[in-house]
This record gives sequence, C-alpha cells and structure tokens, in this order.
Amino acid sequence: MNTRHPEVAEWFKSLQDNICTALEKADGKGTFHEDSWNRPGGGGGRSRVIANAQVIEKGGVNFSEVYGQTPESVKASMETDEEEFYATGVSIVLHPHNPRVPIIHMNVRMFEMSGGTLWFGGGIDLTPHLIHDADARFFHGQLKEVCDKHHEDYYPKFKKWADDYFYIPHRKETRGIGGIFFDYLKPKDSVEFKTLWSFVQDVGSTFAPTYTALMDKNKDLPFSEDEKNWQLLRRGRYAEFNLVWDRGTKFGLQTDGRIESILMSMPPLAQWEYNHQPLEGSDAHFTLKHLKKGINWLEFYRD
Amino acid sequence: MNTRHPEVAEWFKSLQDNICTALEKADGKGTFHEDSWNRPGGGGGRSRVIANAQVIEKGGVNFSEVYGQTPESVKASMETDEEEFYATGVSIVLHPHNPRVPIIHMNVRMFEMSGGTLWFGGGIDLTPHLIHDADARFFHGQLKEVCDKHHEDYYPKFKKWADDYFYIPHRKETRGIGGIFFDYLKPKDSVEFKTLWSFVQDVGSTFAPTYTALMDKNKDLPFSEDEKNWQLLRRGRYAEFNLVWDRGTKFGLQTDGRIESILMSMPPLAQWEYNHQPLEGSDAHFTLKHLKKGINWLEFYRD
Repeated sequence: MNTRHPEVAEWFKSLQDNICTALEKADGKGTFHEDSWNRPGGGGGRSRVIANAQVIEKGGVNFSEVYGQTPESVKASMETDEEEFYATGVSIVLHPHNPRVPIIHMNVRMFEMSGGTLWFGGGIDLTPHLIHDADARFFHGQLKEVCDKHHEDYYPKFKKWADDYFYIPHRKETRGIGGIFFDYLKPKDSVEFKTLWSFVQDVGSTFAPTYTALMDKNKDLPFSEDEKNWQLLRRGRYAEFNLVWDRGTKFGLQTDGRIESILMSMPPLAQWEYNHQPLEGSDAHFTLKHLKKGINWLEFYRD
Repeated sequence: MNTRHPEVAEWFKSLQDNICTALEKADGKGTFHEDSWNRPGGGGGRSRVIANAQVIEKGGVNFSEVYGQTPESVKASMETDEEEFYATGVSIVLHPHNPRVPIIHMNVRMFEMSGGTLWFGGGIDLTPHLIHDADARFFHGQLKEVCDKHHEDYYPKFKKWADDYFYIPHRKETRGIGGIFFDYLKPKDSVEFKTLWSFVQDVGSTFAPTYTALMDKNKDLPFSEDEKNWQLLRRGRYAEFNLVWDRGTKFGLQTDGRIESILMSMPPLAQWEYNHQPLEGSDAHFTLKHLKKGINWLEFYRD
C-alpha cells in the first residue's frame, strides 16, 4: 500500500542520518555500519549499528518503512478490519561503556491503514544506571520544552504514559527515569495532521542534542568496580523489560520481524546475580530507591 | 489444600538434598546457599543457589510446595474449574564457567487439584555451548535408559516433546540438544499413580550422575577466547528463550511468583552482538548448524 504522506518516511530517513552524524561526532571514534533489508511481505529498512566505539558500547539507529497485509494482532488491538497497513519510523537504543552515561531509547513512528485510519506514536526514555539529579532535571526539561511548544497537556500526560509503559511489573521497578511516551495520536483532518506531525518531528529532533549533552558531560567520569557491576545488572533488567514486557519487541518476535533489528536493543553484556542488594548509601542504592512512578524529575534534587 | 500424596513433596526434598550434595562434591569448592520463602497465597519453598564455585559459575536447585486458589491461567489451560491447587517439584538450572561444560536444566513436578485431577510433568534438557558428539550420545543414552525402564514409547515421545518445547521460534534454533519433556501425565488409578511416580523419581535420580559425569569430563578442557565469547552469546539465547517463550517462567512472572527463584535460571553474564556469525569450520559453527529438531543424538557422530 502507498502512503498518502511519503514525506514522513523521507523525513525519518533524514532524521536517522542526522542522528547518526551527531552521535558519531559526540563519540569521537565509532562509525555506524549500515545493513539494508527487505521485508518479505512488503517494505524494508535501514539498520545502522555501532559497536565498541569510544563512548557507545553497542547501539542501533534504525529506520524502517514496512507495509502489506495487516497482521491479525494489529487488527485486534486497533479494533479495525482494514486489510492493509503502512508503518514507518525510527528506533534507537544506545548502551554506553561508562555506567555514568545513561542508556537511551527513542522511537517515533507513523501508522496508516488502508481504510484511512492514521496515527502517530513515539517517545524517548532514559535509563541511568546511576541516577544523577541534574541530568534527570535536564532530560525531563528538554522533553517538557518540546511538549509545551505544542500543547500544555502533552508533557504531564505523556510523562505519566512513559511511567506506566516503561515499568517492570515482576520487579516492581520502573526501567529508568522515564520520559515521554505517546501512541494513537490520530489527526482528525489535514490541519491536525500537520500539527501532530510537527510535534513528532520536534520530538525526533530533540534526541541528538539531548543525548550528546549527556554523553559529553558524563563520558569521562570515574566509576568503581561495584558501579560497573551494577551497570551489568541494570542491563539485565533492561533485557527483562524488552523481552518480557515491551509491546514493540513482543510484536516483532511474534510476527516474524527482522530479529537482528528488533534485538539491536539488547545490551552488549548483561549480568544476573541471585538476590543482589546494593550497599546502603551507595549511588546504586539511591538509584534503586528512585525507580518509581510519579516522581517529578523536573524538580528532583538529591539533597 | 492438603495433598493426598505427602510422600511426593518429602521425596522431592530429599532429591534436592542429594543433588546438592552430589554437585558440591563434583564442583570441589562451591557450596549451596539456602533461602527459605513463604508464598503469600499458601506454601513456599527452599531455594538453593550457588555462585562463583569452581566448575559452576551460577545455578540453583530449588524445591517448592505451593497451594491455594487456582490461578485463572491454570484453570484455562487445564480446562477445569477446580478451585484449589497444590503443586510441588524441583527445578534446576546450572551455568558452568568452562564453555565446554554444557548448561543443564531439570524440572520434576506434581500438580493436584481440589476436584481430584492430578498430573506429573518434568524433563531434563542439555544446552552445550559447543556440541560434543560423545557427550550428546551419553546424555540421550542416559535418558533413553531411564525411559525404557518404564515404557518403550516414552523416550521417542518425550524426546520429540523436548525438541518442540525447547525451541526458540524467533531464532529458528533449538535451545540446545534437547532431552526429554513431559506434562499432564495423569494416573487413572492408584496403581498407575505408583508407576508414573516411580518414573518421575527415576528421572530425578538420573540427573546427578549424568551431569556430574559431564562436569568431570569437560571441566578442565582448554578453550579459546572466541569460544568464551560464543558461550556468552549462547547464554543470551538462553535468556531469550526463558524470558520470551518458557511457559514456566512466563507463568511465574505473570502470577507474581517469587522472582529471585524464578529467575535463578538466568545466566551469570550474557552477551548480545549484532548479527554474529561464527567462523566457518569452528566448533561454534558446527554447533549452530546442529541446533535443529529431529536429530537422533543417540547415534550422532561428528565425522
């Protein structure tokens, strides 16, 4: 199926280009490796992966544009019987070497159905191995700024949505300090299409300056062996969230998606330890205590 | 609810004791650490974990005996509305240091419902990081022997069941070389109860001599850095299977089970690498080619 909005995929491609360029510059050493792939049912993508760079240990910045017969699971969850779908977007996960640099995830996407249903979705969320209050304020401040530009309800609504979405029920922990998450934003006419699309573009564009600032600020900070160990344990939780709870990952695995692109989100190295408890008073302990929903990160001060 | 067969849980406890003793002896250095726990809805367990021992890097030998209101998911999958359940069993996963020692898993269990429905389930399966033909023949030979003692159909039937169960659909790979898996073995009278229970006991009793033989034989074998790396990647697959597909793990995570005991199966350290391909001609490459269903491991020769 053809989209009525080919400019969306074109813009997502340029977003992927710009983000990769900005990340390579901030990393100082690594370069992205590109794999293009075709989807048997229609469409394909451009996976760009990076490994063992200077700041980034492993990550991916993926563009995809896929279409064809609507999977039954999409029909069920959207309560529609539209026969064909079209979906395009950019997905990012980056795992840094230094435990003081946070893991980040972003996804922005547009979904369109043959009957005319169309919606945007996306979000950015941050998973610090060790929560730093100024970084948390900065990160949420950036997201609030981009949201407020479009609607005063967006930040509080999408911040709560992220708290609820990036939650690991079996651990009773959030994955990190959240961010924003939104889905099923359906424009009712061409005017609203433009305003929503402009919001999604702004979210996409805020990614690179926000994350490269966090890379620059933290990449050379010292850390202890215990903190490195803690990072690997947190990556284990990241793997648990993605494999057990993340809707996008589960959808991909169950619909025979391109495995290597779906699982580019997995950490380079992760660890599990029976009943690990961080030392009272450590930064790890402080972090664990704050992996909770409902924290106002905009005004979060450690002391 | 009380079971009509208290001797089953008692025997499982002694099985746990005997297996821990045998593993400690084979390891030569490590000792199990015990955590007892209570289940809020009824019952509890004895988790025994081991970490950073000589041969075993991480593992658990868990006994549990839980009962109470039947979870809705059990009612649905068993097509029953019996209000109370009772379940007892032993679960084991061991991750060794040396990539030439295989990962092993065993579970033996009895399930009983307030309306009188009762069944046994269980299995043992082996996940070599690097498949060794003589080890594969030995392992399946041990399982065939214990099965044949009870019924000539058991080994072929339960071997196929393990092939189908320990399969990672999104990777189109088996987890390892399989073994045996069985479930819903329902005795129709007290005579059959005795024969099935005796089969389950024999499966449990074959675990220690089988695995300690594989430990002893392989623990001091040399391995390359590439092979160590490959071990971490295979552990990543193990984590994927357990978190995405394993019924027992999913059931535990969704019904608020004791997380630390459920996830004792997770590897100590695991790795993900984008699109890793083992070198042609390597033992890793040979292994990957043989992670398939339907291989007759009893007569498997490398050359």
